[in-house]
Amino acid sequence: MKEVPSIQRLSLNQITTENWNLSEAVEGCLRAEVPWISVWRHKLQEFGLNKSRKMIRDAGLRVSSLCRGGMFPAASKSERQSRLDDNRRALEEAAELGTDVLVLVCGSAPDRDLDSARKWVEEGIEQLIPYAKECGVKLGIEPLHPMYAADRSVIVTLGQANAIRERLQSTQVGVVVDVFHVWWDPDLYQQIARAGDHILGFHVSDWIVPVPDLFKGRGMMGDGVIEIRRIRQAVEEAGYNGPIEVEIINQAIWDQPGDQTLQTMKDRYLEHV
Amino acid sequence: MKEVPSIQRLSLNQITTENWNLSEAVEGCLRAEVPWISVWRHKLQEFGLNKSRKMIRDAGLRVSSLCRGGMFPAASKSERQSRLDDNRRALEEAAELGTDVLVLVCGSAPDRDLDSARKWVEEGIEQLIPYAKECGVKLGIEPLHPMYAADRSVIVTLGQANAIRERLQSTQVGVVVDVFHVWWDPDLYQQIARAGDHILGFHVSDWIVPVPDLFKGRGMMGDGVIEIRRIRQAVEEAGYNGPIEVEIINQAIWDQPGDQTLQTMKDRYLEHV
Repeated sequence: MKEVPSIQRLSLNQITTENWNLSEAVEGCLRAEVPWISVWRHKLQEFGLNKSRKMIRDAGLRVSSLCRGGMFPAASKSERQSRLDDNRRALEEAAELGTDVLVLVCGSAPDRDLDSARKWVEEGIEQLIPYAKECGVKLGIEPLHPMYAADRSVIVTLGQANAIRERLQSTQVGVVVDVFHVWWDPDLYQQIARAGDHILGFHVSDWIVPVPDLFKGRGMMGDGVIEIRRIRQAVEEAGYNGPIEVEIINQAIWDQPGDQTLQTMKDRYLEHV
Repeated sequence: MKEVPSIQRLSLNQITTENWNLSEAVEGCLRAEVPWISVWRHKLQEFGLNKSRKMIRDAGLRVSSLCRGGMFPAASKSERQSRLDDNRRALEEAAELGTDVLVLVCGSAPDRDLDSARKWVEEGIEQLIPYAKECGVKLGIEPLHPMYAADRSVIVTLGQANAIRERLQSTQVGVVVDVFHVWWDPDLYQQIARAGDHILGFHVSDWIVPVPDLFKGRGMMGDGVIEIRRIRQAVEEAGYNGPIEVEIINQAIWDQPGDQTLQTMKDRYLEHV
């Protein structure tokens, strides 16, 4: 467990530089010597999967994860089926890009019934396991902050994610720890230890006060109140030593030059992560 | 456990009609035949404690709770002491107003250290117990939504509130269940059952999508996604049959005529609570 994490683990989650397309993000990572990138699916469309893969490989970048699969709950069985089909395409894309992690944002309830939605999430993940195995890609359940329970994810604690993973008993399923989503949780450190070597990803940003926006409200590491280093060390102690993604959804950061964002992100990574 | 709750349990939490002073709120409750009111401390200042009490008693209203005590964590011991002194004044005010519940919004960490802040909350509550007993007022720990962890309360789950109550082992301490704060919690129904007859208050509003504002974002019952009736029935099953406060912090609702808010709130109470 190191005081400062190696820069060799730093990954740009592409949403942090939302105004850059994939080509610009790849070039930006090269200039800033950021060795990893996490790719968003909607960013693949501009160049297509083959060209995107080639750009990333030619640059010598490694892909830490693909964002995102999930969104399992839906009112009708046919719609839930089509969500699963979309997840299978996401697994194929992840494999093509050379990453072994598909991040799951599990989805919200189509109505007021949280219990059913949570059941559909678990069933959905279970049904994906065989194809995930075939693709050589793991399914990373990312609990989201409870303030997104109504519109993004009914999985809102690491405890829930761990419980699903344990029930499914598949090495193909793990969890993703994002400090922005879990920092408030009184059970956080227990649940990180419980996740053990099933942690598939670690995402950093910060919780700034006041939060400027419910969705685009994340801050740069060091600008908020999260004990990021403590959480990173706990995740390492549990067994995770993979890439660390900087994932910041914030309009003001999007509006600044991408190169500036990458430089700040590197400095803050060394200081606060 | 009734399908529809008695209108005799309905309480106007004064923040729902933020533009009314206490006199206007009392008159509004009389016109709408709302039998209970929950008073905010800052609303007492205009008329003073004695006159406020007289207005409420003359109107035949009952006070369901006083909002609010708490705010225990602070960087220095002297500041924490002065917070306790303020809580003692709040206990006196609650007793004067004839309510036996002081709602605690526990406060946030003065820095990044959640553990210390949580310890100070528990110590603060413990130190208030003797005086609360003397005043005949109970301390209601209200867990707030995790999105307020950085600026309002480090107590963010009913599980935490229950654990504090159990450790302190005093009948002077209980919990307050507000649907807006706890609806997302996968452990909600277990924790309501665990709280048992230590539930001191039940607050309703709704979670609307999208949330218009992090603070002033609560909706009228029925306009959002919370299973309010299910939670109300669970709280009753646990043993709570006291007043049900409508507590809505929402600019659009504040801006409409108070009488309209009270009428809608009554209708929605019968339909959705």
